[in-house]
Amino acid sequence: MAPLLEIHHRDPGSQARTGVLNLAHGQVRTPAFVPLATKGTIKGLEPREVAALGYDMVLGNTFHLFLAPGEELVRELGGLHEFMRWSDPIITDSGGFQVFSMGHGTVADEIKGRAPTGSDRAGAILGIEEEGVRFRSYIDGGPRFMAPETSMEVQAALGSDIALAFDECTPFHVTRDYTERSTERTHRWLDRCIAWHDEHQPLAGGGGGRQVLYSISQGGVYEDLRRAATRHIAQTSAPGVAIGGSLGADKPQMYEVVSWATAELDEVAPDKPRHLLGIGEIDDLVRGVELGIDTFDCAMPTRIGRHGMALVPDPARRWRIDLTKGRMKRVNEPIMDDCPCPACSNGFTRAYLHYLFSAHELTALRLVTLHNLSFIARLMADLRGAIATGTLPQVAAAVRAGAAPGALAAAA
Amino acid sequence: MAPLLEIHHRDPGSQARTGVLNLAHGQVRTPAFVPLATKGTIKGLEPREVAALGYDMVLGNTFHLFLAPGEELVRELGGLHEFMRWSDPIITDSGGFQVFSMGHGTVADEIKGRAPTGSDRAGAILGIEEEGVRFRSYIDGGPRFMAPETSMEVQAALGSDIALAFDECTPFHVTRDYTERSTERTHRWLDRCIAWHDEHQPLAGGGGGRQVLYSISQGGVYEDLRRAATRHIAQTSAPGVAIGGSLGADKPQMYEVVSWATAELDEVAPDKPRHLLGIGEIDDLVRGVELGIDTFDCAMPTRIGRHGMALVPDPARRWRIDLTKGRMKRVNEPIMDDCPCPACSNGFTRAYLHYLFSAHELTALRLVTLHNLSFIARLMADLRGAIATGTLPQVAAAVRAGAAPGALAAAA
Repeated sequence: MAPLLEIHHRDPGSQARTGVLNLAHGQVRTPAFVPLATKGTIKGLEPREVAALGYDMVLGNTFHLFLAPGEELVRELGGLHEFMRWSDPIITDSGGFQVFSMGHGTVADEIKGRAPTGSDRAGAILGIEEEGVRFRSYIDGGPRFMAPETSMEVQAALGSDIALAFDECTPFHVTRDYTERSTERTHRWLDRCIAWHDEHQPLAGGGGGRQVLYSISQGGVYEDLRRAATRHIAQTSAPGVAIGGSLGADKPQMYEVVSWATAELDEVAPDKPRHLLGIGEIDDLVRGVELGIDTFDCAMPTRIGRHGMALVPDPARRWRIDLTKGRMKRVNEPIMDDCPCPACSNGFTRAYLHYLFSAHELTALRLVTLHNLSFIARLMADLRGAIATGTLPQVAAAVRAGAAPGALAAAA
Repeated sequence: MAPLLEIHHRDPGSQARTGVLNLAHGQVRTPAFVPLATKGTIKGLEPREVAALGYDMVLGNTFHLFLAPGEELVRELGGLHEFMRWSDPIITDSGGFQVFSMGHGTVADEIKGRAPTGSDRAGAILGIEEEGVRFRSYIDGGPRFMAPETSMEVQAALGSDIALAFDECTPFHVTRDYTERSTERTHRWLDRCIAWHDEHQPLAGGGGGRQVLYSISQGGVYEDLRRAATRHIAQTSAPGVAIGGSLGADKPQMYEVVSWATAELDEVAPDKPRHLLGIGEIDDLVRGVELGIDTFDCAMPTRIGRHGMALVPDPARRWRIDLTKGRMKRVNEPIMDDCPCPACSNGFTRAYLHYLFSAHELTALRLVTLHNLSFIARLMADLRGAIATGTLPQVAAAVRAGAAPGALAAAA
């Protein structure tokens, strides 16, 4: 049987590696970005469009799908793949992030430096116990309970290819003492997730392939806690690992925290696939790849797209332009020259997109989402190609200097 | 030079005809339905998707584009075709319907039996004079003025293939006396539109082809007024005619009013193309084709799609199902069996679409809009084929009995 992660090439100057993840619904070329299908749809797009951009996997949200339409309905309708008509691999998060975002309030947004959103914040936590978490549904206001076993049951009903263990996602502002106690509880919850998963051996959808479980590393920004937590979870029987929780207050600290985790993983579990939760800025993806991350998910490209922000190869502006600004009104040019995405290649201009956003027209959200996902997909393809051809240092430098995706392999 | 309307076949038992409209941006196969691109976008879709469904022309809205982004900006950016990236023919309405909807208030919805919408109703009329109409912009609250010449200037700047004359769209509830006086003013305004159009000879976009002008028949539901108005406008030099204004309180009256108009047209201008404004229910399209209508526009398929209503071959339910109803929650079937549209052919189920609407997910609006437009496009193709093959009576009967589009030509 093929290993879960086949590493085909390694970059000699960093921890970067490229290969494929072998999952029940097919292969994921790594390193890969995983677009969000939070509520069972990539907002505004069809699955075939996302696949056509070059994506092999999407991420469904256990918390949201648990509340609506409910995992039992999804199971009855054939599982999440069949329900949303995505035939390639799916990873589901555990619900931990969303449950604890409600409890930790607005500061939970610090966890990933995210802007607050209604869906992450609505609802309220009623109590965190050893057994699990009680909270109020943002849909109907009714009380709900989620334990590690609940999360596993929901993810089994959804039939994802990769399930994530249920963890407490500790934010940045809590004390070291709280982080330590929370991380220990997360490890006890991991044991319960593994026990449930081993006992039930859930399938990934209807095809007969098995779902695989990833553990999650917590430990906050404390080096000893983060290293110990990562080492601990990596040594369990869970075949993959994710890096979660607070990664710090700024990018240098985030890279440092991730580097502690991947250094530990290189020692104790070098062949286990590694997912970095909730990170996806352009420079973060490049650095994450260098640090040996195999998969990333992030709301950024789709969320900013819906708000009129388009990705461009401009590091000085955090790789984005704001199409809603008045200065775009007369700009008779595409978002990016020579971009093969459905927005740019069909000639939609910044001026037209600016107008559509001001008129609140749905077409705008869609076109910019397609552009942003295309940008990230081509960036990841460049990085994979660079690792395979031994040109990662040059390609990473070119990206950081503002090279456009697609031109990178040629330029290296 | 090819005539504006080439009639290839006539149905011997009705006024129906099939052929092509020869316009600056290409041919429109008639009879045709024309989807709305009210504000320069078919809501939620890309032009290439609408063309792929089988549509040859879309309708842009002079009133809305006049207010935002403004016709001068559209002209500066290359005209409406270039701006919205639709390379086939465009018809623009004159703005009359929207301007007068504001003035006549909620009863204006009677004109077409439409549900009230924000965009039709916002704003207010400040005065109707012989010169034109003063009204308040729903965008910035500022006063605006639209005269027949303004409407022509705006449509020239947009560069549509077909411009419509500026008319007062008389609603159903006004008196015969008001209708008569209003219709006479509409005729004086038509003369001014023709004079402006003759003087300026506007091009349709940048390709060098000429824009053509359609007159509009008013006259309300009064047979003598409607017949006289139709005869009058058909005898002007405007090469096409549209049937507008109040068509009655119910379908039988609407068909009667349209039949008076097309009977007059058959006598005085049998070769001029005929557009029926704002009509697009399934049975209305069939009857309209039998009455000799060449093109139709209507918000119905796109608007009801955004509200969760999908077209199905079921006359008893007005050819629609409501996907937002609770009974759809577990229906693990597509909207229609054997439907080639992007929603049905890709396996999205009623249950999934129901869930997406309840979660307010954009993908739902898009998929049902695509389905509805596909349904209508295939219906119109069936009707064209039926006229060409002498089977219109059988095909029309089959549609009225609930036959699915696409199966009709074979069944006839």
